Amino acid sequence: MADITLAEVRRWDKEDSLRPLRAAFRLPPGVIYLDGNSLGPLPRTTPRRLDAVVRQEWGHGLIRSWQEAGWIDAPARVGGKIARLIGAAPEEVVVADSTSINLFKLLAASVRLQPAAGTGARRKILIEAGSFPTDRHVADGVAALLPDVEVVAVAPAALPGALDAATSVLLLCDVHYRSGVRHDMAALTRAAHAVGALAVWDLSHSAGAVKVDLHAAGADMAVGCGYKFLNGGPGAPAFLYVARALQAAARSPLQGWIGHAAPFGFSEFYAPAEGMGRFLAGTPGVLGLAALACGVDLMLTADAAAVWQKSARLFDLFAARMSRRCAGLQLITPADARLRGSHIAFRYDGAEAVMAALIAEGVIGDFRPPDVLRFGLTPLYTRYEDVWRAVEVIAEIVGPAK
Amino acid sequence: MADITLAEVRRWDKEDSLRPLRAAFRLPPGVIYLDGNSLGPLPRTTPRRLDAVVRQEWGHGLIRSWQEAGWIDAPARVGGKIARLIGAAPEEVVVADSTSINLFKLLAASVRLQPAAGTGARRKILIEAGSFPTDRHVADGVAALLPDVEVVAVAPAALPGALDAATSVLLLCDVHYRSGVRHDMAALTRAAHAVGALAVWDLSHSAGAVKVDLHAAGADMAVGCGYKFLNGGPGAPAFLYVARALQAAARSPLQGWIGHAAPFGFSEFYAPAEGMGRFLAGTPGVLGLAALACGVDLMLTADAAAVWQKSARLFDLFAARMSRRCAGLQLITPADARLRGSHIAFRYDGAEAVMAALIAEGVIGDFRPPDVLRFGLTPLYTRYEDVWRAVEVIAEIVGPAK
Repeated sequence: MADITLAEVRRWDKEDSLRPLRAAFRLPPGVIYLDGNSLGPLPRTTPRRLDAVVRQEWGHGLIRSWQEAGWIDAPARVGGKIARLIGAAPEEVVVADSTSINLFKLLAASVRLQPAAGTGARRKILIEAGSFPTDRHVADGVAALLPDVEVVAVAPAALPGALDAATSVLLLCDVHYRSGVRHDMAALTRAAHAVGALAVWDLSHSAGAVKVDLHAAGADMAVGCGYKFLNGGPGAPAFLYVARALQAAARSPLQGWIGHAAPFGFSEFYAPAEGMGRFLAGTPGVLGLAALACGVDLMLTADAAAVWQKSARLFDLFAARMSRRCAGLQLITPADARLRGSHIAFRYDGAEAVMAALIAEGVIGDFRPPDVLRFGLTPLYTRYEDVWRAVEVIAEIVGPAK
Repeated sequence: MADITLAEVRRWDKEDSLRPLRAAFRLPPGVIYLDGNSLGPLPRTTPRRLDAVVRQEWGHGLIRSWQEAGWIDAPARVGGKIARLIGAAPEEVVVADSTSINLFKLLAASVRLQPAAGTGARRKILIEAGSFPTDRHVADGVAALLPDVEVVAVAPAALPGALDAATSVLLLCDVHYRSGVRHDMAALTRAAHAVGALAVWDLSHSAGAVKVDLHAAGADMAVGCGYKFLNGGPGAPAFLYVARALQAAARSPLQGWIGHAAPFGFSEFYAPAEGMGRFLAGTPGVLGLAALACGVDLMLTADAAAVWQKSARLFDLFAARMSRRCAGLQLITPADARLRGSHIAFRYDGAEAVMAALIAEGVIGDFRPPDVLRFGLTPLYTRYEDVWRAVEVIAEIVGPAK
């Protein structure tokens, strides 16, 4: 791909089967948006849908809309849609709360599924050092509440060796938020199971972007984010997955009335709903759910294989053009598509200033401390030519390859 | 008030200083909405504001809006507005998550502020039996996680006597969700403090409806709901309050990146933000926050004393007309305005069927099992004539007073 020309790149765009989907988003003019892995852009369907939810369902239907407009079922309904993107069954996924809160539910539930004391006690939450901070913060929060739980963080290569008979849960981000490095979900889940531990996956940087197959990997539980590749809007609610076989025994520590088997029975005593309903807690945020449904529906119109393929090709083009035009930036994302997510990251000493300059020029990516430039490659609306042009702007700012 | 006439009631409406506020809501024609304590109606400002947030801030501003549109500060900004309605300082309130989740944070934080073991251990969460289920469910959830914590539920009259040296937290709903009975927040908080316990208040059925003064009562912590009297929309985010003096020591068990002292430093180790920011966890739900701000802003335009006064008068009229027109329903809400919130409740054997019939006639209230009819009295948009007419419809359905 090193010698590719702009004309060829334009031909790719022309022949791209996903090309019509770009028009399904409202993208501001003059911007190359390579930050859809931080906040996905606005689907064209969303404003009208939200307006209908607000004016009709809320304004006109009022309290009746909990039943008549199906608000009460939205967490399961939208969860069922997301299930199709992550290799899960519809009844294994619900939408609720934030990724952080959902992770707390699942980690506490996981640890409590395991023996707490005596021979065979399992109280270690094993995580990857340097992964997304919330995952560790939440794990540390669980450890501070539950007796004897400890959080152990090791480098990725040391993970398999650190799994042992004391391990309760292996918690990993499928794709690393900074480097884009992807774990082998199936292999690590197998390794966790081999020592009797559960595997919990954070799909924030992979759901909707690359192929995720929780069933094939045998994953026990997972969480993920609604506002990145799913284009659900700022602070969109998150989702959580629990494998069917574990649902009956798993208990959320966050017991709220909407997770009750009979929320409108107003019983004093908590009886968890059957299935994933037990992982709900408070009243569902209807506006956030409605916006998320628009993003997910749009994603479901795309051919999944085409999305993954384009993700890989956008990456390869970005990497090739960078190596040709501004080699001073060190690529830290694996070149092998099987080993990464759908963003590309470079290490550079002046990364923060470079990103500020890029944004000023209308190329929006992310700076991640201490020295990383991160660009999201989102196949639904990113054109190959966008990548080409972004690299040209980067080259102007950092100077050409030496 | 027993002999009041419709003409007089109409004169009250004409002279009502809050009357212009009714036009600030979009209320469906043909409906008398007495369920604003379940889901407040739509403020006229909300659809346009949400549309601007969606199209401009999200669609055009994209990721930049976290700073440029002030999304990142919305939890504190909207919390600061709510503070004015509950007798708190602006920096003591943030908006986040749901009431259930926030209660979990505060109960766990409260218990952990108290001695856990040895002489002086305090591990009892004292609650009112038969209060809103989520409060007990959440407390039971905390007890299941933390060692030796027990939840003790007693009848309201037994609460002072049940406070003892083992009590860690007294958790109460300010206003009972079914009966409307209100506690004496100041007296019970004093009683809790007298034995060394903390007092946590759930303001879901009082904030925005009746006078709440957390400072005057000396309350330690509080939570409340955004979608009832604050008119924040279905599943609006909730708020939480921690008295300034407790903030530095209180730790949320739900440690997410947005509660970190430096969220964008991406440190592996959790350092809670100063002040109420530490009670945030995941990424704030921007759409829900924006809608809630509209509701709260609207409420802040009303004269608070006029709101409380009208709440009491709506109640008195409802009670008087019911006693005259359909005495078969037993009023279970105290007649003394100081002892109740802003809804009125009646016990009746056929309550569920009566409420279904009322809703079919366009009078929307709530049925609460096993036998309670509940009507919200929301001064911003409820007319005295609405109350008159609602009672006439009830009388038609249940038959006249014997």
